[in-house]
Amino acid sequence: MRDFEIPGHLEVRDDHLFICGVDTVKLADEYGTPLYVTSEDRLRDNYRRFAEAFKGAHIFFAAKSNNSIVVQRILAQEGAGADAFSGGEVYLARLAGIPPQKILFTGNSKSDEELEFAVNSGVMISIDSHDELMALSRIADGLGKEVRVAFRVNPDISANAHPKLATGLKTSKFGIPRQEIVDIYKKAKGLPGVKPVGIHCHIGSQILEVDPYVEAVNRMMDLVGQICDFINLEFVDIGGGFGIPYQKGVRAPTPRDWADAIIPAFKDRCAQLGISPELHLEPGRYIVADTTVLLTRVNTVKKAYANFIGVDAGFNTLIRPAMYDAYHEVVVANRAGEENMGTYTVAGPVCESGDILARDRRLPAVRKGDVIALLDAGAYGYCMSSQYVGRPRCAEVLVHHGHAELIRKRETYDDLLHNQLIPGRLL
Amino acid sequence: MRDFEIPGHLEVRDDHLFICGVDTVKLADEYGTPLYVTSEDRLRDNYRRFAEAFKGAHIFFAAKSNNSIVVQRILAQEGAGADAFSGGEVYLARLAGIPPQKILFTGNSKSDEELEFAVNSGVMISIDSHDELMALSRIADGLGKEVRVAFRVNPDISANAHPKLATGLKTSKFGIPRQEIVDIYKKAKGLPGVKPVGIHCHIGSQILEVDPYVEAVNRMMDLVGQICDFINLEFVDIGGGFGIPYQKGVRAPTPRDWADAIIPAFKDRCAQLGISPELHLEPGRYIVADTTVLLTRVNTVKKAYANFIGVDAGFNTLIRPAMYDAYHEVVVANRAGEENMGTYTVAGPVCESGDILARDRRLPAVRKGDVIALLDAGAYGYCMSSQYVGRPRCAEVLVHHGHAELIRKRETYDDLLHNQLIPGRLL
Ligand SMILES: Cc1ncc(COP(=O)(O)O)c(C=O)c1O
Ligand SMILES: Cc1ncc(COP(=O)(O)O)c(C=O)c1O
Repeated sequence: MRDFEIPGHLEVRDDHLFICGVDTVKLADEYGTPLYVTSEDRLRDNYRRFAEAFKGAHIFFAAKSNNSIVVQRILAQEGAGADAFSGGEVYLARLAGIPPQKILFTGNSKSDEELEFAVNSGVMISIDSHDELMALSRIADGLGKEVRVAFRVNPDISANAHPKLATGLKTSKFGIPRQEIVDIYKKAKGLPGVKPVGIHCHIGSQILEVDPYVEAVNRMMDLVGQICDFINLEFVDIGGGFGIPYQKGVRAPTPRDWADAIIPAFKDRCAQLGISPELHLEPGRYIVADTTVLLTRVNTVKKAYANFIGVDAGFNTLIRPAMYDAYHEVVVANRAGEENMGTYTVAGPVCESGDILARDRRLPAVRKGDVIALLDAGAYGYCMSSQYVGRPRCAEVLVHHGHAELIRKRETYDDLLHNQLIPGRLL
Repeated sequence: MRDFEIPGHLEVRDDHLFICGVDTVKLADEYGTPLYVTSEDRLRDNYRRFAEAFKGAHIFFAAKSNNSIVVQRILAQEGAGADAFSGGEVYLARLAGIPPQKILFTGNSKSDEELEFAVNSGVMISIDSHDELMALSRIADGLGKEVRVAFRVNPDISANAHPKLATGLKTSKFGIPRQEIVDIYKKAKGLPGVKPVGIHCHIGSQILEVDPYVEAVNRMMDLVGQICDFINLEFVDIGGGFGIPYQKGVRAPTPRDWADAIIPAFKDRCAQLGISPELHLEPGRYIVADTTVLLTRVNTVKKAYANFIGVDAGFNTLIRPAMYDAYHEVVVANRAGEENMGTYTVAGPVCESGDILARDRRLPAVRKGDVIALLDAGAYGYCMSSQYVGRPRCAEVLVHHGHAELIRKRETYDDLLHNQLIPGRLL
């Protein structure tokens, strides 16, 4: 038995882990492993819960967290916009059916080609630097267009995020220093091709407190107060970063908790200024993380320094544990009702010691052939995967009302040769 | 001017960085960026220098370090074997023309399908666990084959490698504990389908000392001494890990230094035992790292907390700095002869603070549009790249005697949709 409660959209029936009414062990048999399995029902619920709590605000799903066009299509149906961090993400969001006026092209280092592509796509752009402002103005003006823009502020806020993810510190590469913001809005006002309509920040990821957001709102509104003298800002975008309880038992704020702190702070400051801009939010992880389990098959169980379970997913499949020391709960999908019998370390098949998916977990007695489920794998999962160590990328399945559909085919060995060309003289 | 000497196969002409006689700035213009550029001449030189130093030993290129079929093809022409860590790597090595008897399928977590594929491919297999031995014996016997095998030993050696790469510690997931090795050879001897012919270890990566190898040889030979009473071992494989001086000025052993330490130690012990097994080595990084520069274009130069250079390659393209705090020398390819004017931090386009390619480097005055070269990007570079943040994977070019050829086409936005399927009901 697990020493944690499995989340509501998962359940155990006859010792097997089910997601959305579908037996994960059967899915592993039918589609092979590793396999990402995403619950459409949970995805819609998450979005609705978040949107409901932040009623009146506009939600731009952070597309970087999940690059499945199907996931983005479903969110488009729910009414989401998108925060797209590259030309490729703008492209995907458009294909998923998100209208261009609901897409904000963010990003700290955009190429001229990406800017041109974005201008032609009709999306909004969050400008990260002076160089970018000048390039965008020139490109948009050259195309005879005027782009609705925001500027990304570096708010200098320390949210308690992983150092690799704390994007709001003054030392980070993102955004324009607070002291320079008012001047750049003034400058932009006089430039062709760009129309400043919003202001943007993002303070970090996997944040489990409400206070940093209130601080961010206040810092942003300090700036808005100075800018609104000469520009009518239509929106204030405070980014994403809303964390989830990866380790069950950890307390995480609910969307309601965040909204209860953020919205009054925002409304107060707007009232004081006598303005009524929209509030924009860019949740990624919160919307998708817990929709998905990653299924991986046990190739070997080895008693060495630790009890190692060798599985077929590694950091090529899910990089978060190796890269950020991230924690994912583990369920033995075909023994989900059995008693814990030992302490195991789940190791991937990559040739590096850091390729450990979970360390020292109490689990039932695991055998070769068992199926391991890593929970909460829907954010920064497949989209960060690679073909490292000659492993084709894995498949993805969508489950919906007890029914499964393949939404990404498994790559084959031939995909390792994708786009490779051998000069004739070397044949 | 750089405060370090550029390596010999690179040179500066008219302020531009050249590789193998080809102007990198022209390559960036012609093929776009990011772009991996590999010198075939340097690759052949590296291999020959290593093979020459270890004359008589057999070299199994660690295919995990570079997944270009062209690179492997060239090494096949030079006579290299391959250490393949997955079924996919066995597949690639075979396609590259490496004969199966020169391929060792290593790996700590092999699936039954991979074992079957490897058995049918006729390669040798390094077995990592008791479970794997039993599976392989069953599979090979079922196919009516007998596979030449080694066992991977956990030698319990601490080489001074990055913790994520120190594979020879007793705490690591790799190999069979030393105390169990003799018993498993005894067991294997009695099993059908497997024929123990070698012994294998690998102590870590980017090792800049010779002593850990001598220690590894001694520990392995202690075991060989016990095993050779009942099995005639044909080879002793001491793995790879030979480091290179990423930071110029750091002293690194040459192949000759390593060989001078390893070979006498090995020969002595063999003579004492009256046996003459082959010595096998599995260099990856040493052979490919310095053959390659990664070219990336400057999108923006921003003065904020630091002088940030925003380029178009990020940890999606080259993950080593973000994942291992790895150091790569930086050259401004179109200002390679100019004087240093400032201190810059080279930042990628990924939405995470950790996406920094190089910190606080003295460089000439950098401008938008400049081309930055990251040196020594040939090992664990392209093969670890991903499409994270909606970025198609980049292109690769081979240069040879002053001439360039495209060996991997740049992906397009459509490749982000590769293998994705949208259920009809969601259209
Ligand atoms: C600009 C921006 N907005 C939103 C997000 C989404 O963050 P999260 O998935 O933590 O909500 C990110 C993540 O990097 C980001 O960079
Ligand atoms: C078994 C084995 N051999 C060889 C290597 C090659 O290491 P390097 O590239 O440091 O030489 C590795 C790297 O992980 C390995 O796992």
